[in-house]
Amino acid sequence: MKRSEVVAAQHRAADMLDAIGIILTPQEREHVEVAEFGLGKLELQGLQLVTYINTDRYCAKELVLFPNQTCPEHLHPPVGDDPGKTETFRCRHGVVYLYVEGGNGGTIQAEVPAGSESFYTVFHEIELHPGQQYTIPPGTKHWFQAGETGAIVSEFSSTSRDEFDIFTDPNVVRIPVVTED
Amino acid sequence: MKRSEVVAAQHRAADMLDAIGIILTPQEREHVEVAEFGLGKLELQGLQLVTYINTDRYCAKELVLFPNQTCPEHLHPPVGDDPGKTETFRCRHGVVYLYVEGGNGGTIQAEVPAGSESFYTVFHEIELHPGQQYTIPPGTKHWFQAGETGAIVSEFSSTSRDEFDIFTDPNVVRIPVVTED
Repeated sequence: MKRSEVVAAQHRAADMLDAIGIILTPQEREHVEVAEFGLGKLELQGLQLVTYINTDRYCAKELVLFPNQTCPEHLHPPVGDDPGKTETFRCRHGVVYLYVEGGNGGTIQAEVPAGSESFYTVFHEIELHPGQQYTIPPGTKHWFQAGETGAIVSEFSSTSRDEFDIFTDPNVVRIPVVTED
Repeated sequence: MKRSEVVAAQHRAADMLDAIGIILTPQEREHVEVAEFGLGKLELQGLQLVTYINTDRYCAKELVLFPNQTCPEHLHPPVGDDPGKTETFRCRHGVVYLYVEGGNGGTIQAEVPAGSESFYTVFHEIELHPGQQYTIPPGTKHWFQAGETGAIVSEFSSTSRDEFDIFTDPNVVRIPVVTED
């Protein structure tokens, strides 16, 4: 991504948080993480994150999704003594369609990102509205997509070790490269 | 506390959360925890809590403080293999005066609850406004008080084992008894 695109996405995400009363410090606003996953089209497959705290015991983040934006399918594997990240998603704004391993109840409400169909393999749907939450066990494949107004999700979890996440799509690069304009 | 007092405090806390856009499910609204600590005067020393998740790995809560309400001094000791709860307080609304062990910079801004002065022994002040946060290590004595408009604090932490908390005031009963009206 270009620096200007990253900054634009940072501002957009920070403004979405601000609009629902989630207050960031100026430093946090400047450091919103923009994950484009190396897939080239942030608005299709991407995610914006604010990490409040990440210690060797627990982690808390806000996840910001633009309208219809999808976080690609992945899982959190064991790392050393850690059995893998357990995470609780609590919807704060919008609607989130979350997919995990398990029975597929038929058609799903999200739209699998065009061109990446083969990298989406789990379809057990959980629909989260504000105030609703769901906990994903370690090692469970999952992906999620915001509805038409975008979504804000608070994530409470064990320690985050994003660099070990395993994505179904081998083209994913979790830590994005930013090029100067 | 009487049941009617508990219910009134539950509604007041839920309304404060609602006012800043933190959405609870109907079940969560009904089960707001009202901790009066057995001290007989909730508005002086007390705390209202919503626990979103508490597993053997992590915990997330909202803490609601009425105007000038104080959570009494306590610490989180080791329990078995757990070195004790580490917790991060992130202020969402109002102002919180947090006191931990360490140097006392002189006068403090909070008012120690009248009649309980001998049970407040740590005075290193941290002032938290919305968007600001502080992490308290295990085994560290701490207490906190809201400013004049009350306060809302998101707490991210390792596992909560409230029943093991050690309060400086021996009169404290962490798990309150509710009497029917």
